[in-house]
Amino acid sequence: MPVYKAPVADTSFILHDVLDLSRHADLPGFAEATPDTVAAILEEGAKLTETSFAPVNLSGDQEGCTRHADGRVTTPKGFREAYDAYVQGGWLGLSVPEELGGQGLPSTLNTVMQEFASAANLALAMYPGLTMGAVAALIEHASPEQKARYLPKMVEGTWSGTMNLTEPHCGTDLGLIKTKAVPNGDGSFAITGTKIFISAGEHDLTENIVHLVLARIEGAPQGTKGISLFVVPKVLVNDDGSLGERNGVSCGSLEHKMGIHGNATCVMNYDGATGWLVGEENRGLAAMFVMMNEARLAVGVQGLAVSEVAYQNAVAYARDRLQGRSLTGPKNPDGPADPIIVHPDVRRTLMTIRSINEAARALILRTALESDIAHRSPDAAARQKALDFLGLMTPVVKGVFTDLGFDNAVKAQQMFGGHGYVEEWGMSQFVRDARITMIYEGANGIQAMDLVGRKLAKDGGRAVMTFFGEVEAFCKANASDPAMQPYVGPLGEGLGRLQQATMWFMNNAMAKPDNAGAGATDYMHMFGLVAMGYMWGLMAKAALAKEGEPGMAEKLVVGRFYMERLMPETAAQLARISAGADTTMALAADAF
Amino acid sequence: MPVYKAPVADTSFILHDVLDLSRHADLPGFAEATPDTVAAILEEGAKLTETSFAPVNLSGDQEGCTRHADGRVTTPKGFREAYDAYVQGGWLGLSVPEELGGQGLPSTLNTVMQEFASAANLALAMYPGLTMGAVAALIEHASPEQKARYLPKMVEGTWSGTMNLTEPHCGTDLGLIKTKAVPNGDGSFAITGTKIFISAGEHDLTENIVHLVLARIEGAPQGTKGISLFVVPKVLVNDDGSLGERNGVSCGSLEHKMGIHGNATCVMNYDGATGWLVGEENRGLAAMFVMMNEARLAVGVQGLAVSEVAYQNAVAYARDRLQGRSLTGPKNPDGPADPIIVHPDVRRTLMTIRSINEAARALILRTALESDIAHRSPDAAARQKALDFLGLMTPVVKGVFTDLGFDNAVKAQQMFGGHGYVEEWGMSQFVRDARITMIYEGANGIQAMDLVGRKLAKDGGRAVMTFFGEVEAFCKANASDPAMQPYVGPLGEGLGRLQQATMWFMNNAMAKPDNAGAGATDYMHMFGLVAMGYMWGLMAKAALAKEGEPGMAEKLVVGRFYMERLMPETAAQLARISAGADTTMALAADAF
Repeated sequence: MPVYKAPVADTSFILHDVLDLSRHADLPGFAEATPDTVAAILEEGAKLTETSFAPVNLSGDQEGCTRHADGRVTTPKGFREAYDAYVQGGWLGLSVPEELGGQGLPSTLNTVMQEFASAANLALAMYPGLTMGAVAALIEHASPEQKARYLPKMVEGTWSGTMNLTEPHCGTDLGLIKTKAVPNGDGSFAITGTKIFISAGEHDLTENIVHLVLARIEGAPQGTKGISLFVVPKVLVNDDGSLGERNGVSCGSLEHKMGIHGNATCVMNYDGATGWLVGEENRGLAAMFVMMNEARLAVGVQGLAVSEVAYQNAVAYARDRLQGRSLTGPKNPDGPADPIIVHPDVRRTLMTIRSINEAARALILRTALESDIAHRSPDAAARQKALDFLGLMTPVVKGVFTDLGFDNAVKAQQMFGGHGYVEEWGMSQFVRDARITMIYEGANGIQAMDLVGRKLAKDGGRAVMTFFGEVEAFCKANASDPAMQPYVGPLGEGLGRLQQATMWFMNNAMAKPDNAGAGATDYMHMFGLVAMGYMWGLMAKAALAKEGEPGMAEKLVVGRFYMERLMPETAAQLARISAGADTTMALAADAF
Repeated sequence: MPVYKAPVADTSFILHDVLDLSRHADLPGFAEATPDTVAAILEEGAKLTETSFAPVNLSGDQEGCTRHADGRVTTPKGFREAYDAYVQGGWLGLSVPEELGGQGLPSTLNTVMQEFASAANLALAMYPGLTMGAVAALIEHASPEQKARYLPKMVEGTWSGTMNLTEPHCGTDLGLIKTKAVPNGDGSFAITGTKIFISAGEHDLTENIVHLVLARIEGAPQGTKGISLFVVPKVLVNDDGSLGERNGVSCGSLEHKMGIHGNATCVMNYDGATGWLVGEENRGLAAMFVMMNEARLAVGVQGLAVSEVAYQNAVAYARDRLQGRSLTGPKNPDGPADPIIVHPDVRRTLMTIRSINEAARALILRTALESDIAHRSPDAAARQKALDFLGLMTPVVKGVFTDLGFDNAVKAQQMFGGHGYVEEWGMSQFVRDARITMIYEGANGIQAMDLVGRKLAKDGGRAVMTFFGEVEAFCKANASDPAMQPYVGPLGEGLGRLQQATMWFMNNAMAKPDNAGAGATDYMHMFGLVAMGYMWGLMAKAALAKEGEPGMAEKLVVGRFYMERLMPETAAQLARISAGADTTMALAADAF
């Protein structure tokens, strides 16, 4: 069975030594996040995910979810117990405001826990993950009455949440939504339509499921401007909070998917189900975007999470498996062969994954911290700056870390040879599970267009200029430190190329937007490489300050590997972006 | 259900206009391969694979193989009928010498058919594919008596073949093989041991299965020098050629794999099974290498094949699926949205896959043609030159085209959004099937080491220098043709970088072999990019000579895309290779 050990020490290093959490003690909830509290949360989170989530991951994949004739869906053996342990630990409310039943701690810590849980069991972690997204949308947009009715049970974990966007003919282009909402005359609406790919749409983990549903009110304008958001509980909730009658929503079937078999991906049928408008009429997409942005960051975390657990298993196998001899003479002379970790190509693979994971973790936690600042700071300028960072990095975290997470799972699987291809070892599951993260919550091509088409130019390029300025200042401040040279040298070069690519878009994509579209994916990955490189700069600086302490020498090596082996890709990316769209778009559609 | 249309026109262009098959009419079998015969073979091959193989691909994946309580294995519904059609078409013997029951045609044409069959149904195509590999090994190493006993039925397709190498504790490192062979005193041996991951080890498609098995004769030297090759039929063959008693070999279980579910991957138990030595005692690895080299090329073909069928389905979906509007204004103004093929990021994806596929097909067929020359030319110098090319390109074709084939299947799947993740559309199957090609017949890291550690330095670098010289001469000969500039310019640059990387190894890897190991995978991919670039140079030249004819303008565009978007990667590869092994190897094994 695959192993998993939550990366507590590395997380702690990032939170304290790189991000210096204590600097933000003035933010609500941060004063409570003392080093001791943080340590306790990391330890408890590690224990829960290692001992409750991980042991039912492979079996959950093999068993999958079952839809019964009466429409009920049951999750794999052991999921209920693991979920209950999660609920009992109060993890769902970790960063929810205390007045709504949570603990009010930084959402940065919640992001840490999302990584641990998703690494240990992605399919299972999605259930509470979706609830958290729905909670965030309700906090922001629901009426006080709606909040009172739904939030306490959701924060507790007794009820779960979902997002219902996709329909058979539309996923990316939500303007095409057909599900309709007809006023019942009592303030409620009758919702009718079919939604597909609904994660956790029906299951046996909670007493109720609170669906957030996009639909079109009769007579609403065409396109995205006519879409409203509704709350549609699986079981209607009486005014006293008790459960009433079953609502007119049911799971028509389960999708047969490549992976995340333990998560029930449902076709949901709404047959005049009773729903209530959340927020303003026809402003549903904006409301849903709160949930989607939360979800996009969470999906980026999933990419890292699978990459991390795949890495750990590849390391364990590479230490055990004896095959061939080192190129520099036997390292295990008494054995029949050397462990494969002696081979440079195996090392290169492991170092590549690790150098990405540690930088991705740092960028994710930095982004989560900015989200906390954006939501909690009393200072409007600080909030704005944090929101800028958050908006800029959301597509990068989602698009880059899920692409790389999948690639890394494939690389880790490769270490196992034929054993990686058979299901018993669990490596195939990591690959199959990771694959969905590149697709859901906006396929990665959409993330790239969000970055290039919206985020770059927003507010006159304020967010991107601020970020470039921060990286430039860091490079300059450390330019004369010889120990920092292996980091800030290549980082500065990568940043220069990223700036050139940005300038290229400014000069070439305004008049010809296809030039932006044809370079978007490369640009997103280039942005990710430079942002991760900056994280390595920060981590190297922090490691040098703690030189001699355990793990610090290794940090410096892994960071150097990143600069030598990952950063050079920016040269190829710049060349591809600058090639423009002419050749890409030259063929007629029927010439393919 | 997924679509498949064999790429007849493109194949024909490569065979006639790029490779000029008619130039080799002096080779045995080539005079018979007239343009008309070749056209008939391509058409028949297309028809068979499109109408018999493709329709049972998705259903074969979903049903899989079944092992019954008595050890029998049955293949999915429809496999038997499709296999019979293949046998009746005489496809197994297409390029086998006429005196052995074949048609004696160029094996280049057999390679074409391997692509069509693997694209249409990889799991099914593997059954006859393995037989062909076993036939090749027997032709080269078996005694006349053994040939007479086994080959006619195998060439006919009534019996199939397998290769039995891997054991639970060894795959790459065959020196660790434990299966033992004890002389029976009558010239035969009793074979005992367990083999795993045996493709087509047991099934219901043929009357008999001829296993080629690596085992160690009692008292043989340790390691690779003590391994012998045996032929072990599932059913013993009487002297008159009729089937006798069941031999002591059986399928213990089927592996639960990520993909190729329609192919029976078996644990094979040898319990004193009767086998006969093939070739010399203790020279089994050398004999098996004939089969492995054939198989490696065939696996490279599989990589291309899955990439091609995945591409075709992505194109079909991208033309149909309406989602969003073109950045340059509606292209389908009367519809609710534009087909996604208008989006530059979708185009970029499709063009990337296509530019790889067409170049891969050209390099594969060029390599197959060299194999024909190596086996059939009366001229020793020509044979030697062809063998050099073959040896050099075998790891490139296997390693690069399976890595890219998998990547391309993933890219094609991405075009489908969520629909790519559900099994009904077949895109998940292409990804899962393609994944094995990176692993079997030598994991791709091994291919890279074969290229860098053995092939480069062999005979004083003769093969690689000849190849570089050929590409250089081509660039020089076309340097003054403005129409060829977009091709030979970037090709020359890529070649220059490849030569620099080669020189770097010469200067840095002799004394420190880890420097070769740490750069091997990048080098292999760089070699592939330059070799494909050279193919694009040749194809552009051929297309320019036929300017105005159908498809030629498109060829020139796709080739330009390759040069603009694929070739720049060589810069990053050179940088990574030149970084050397120091950082890669710096950590202690227990620091991972």
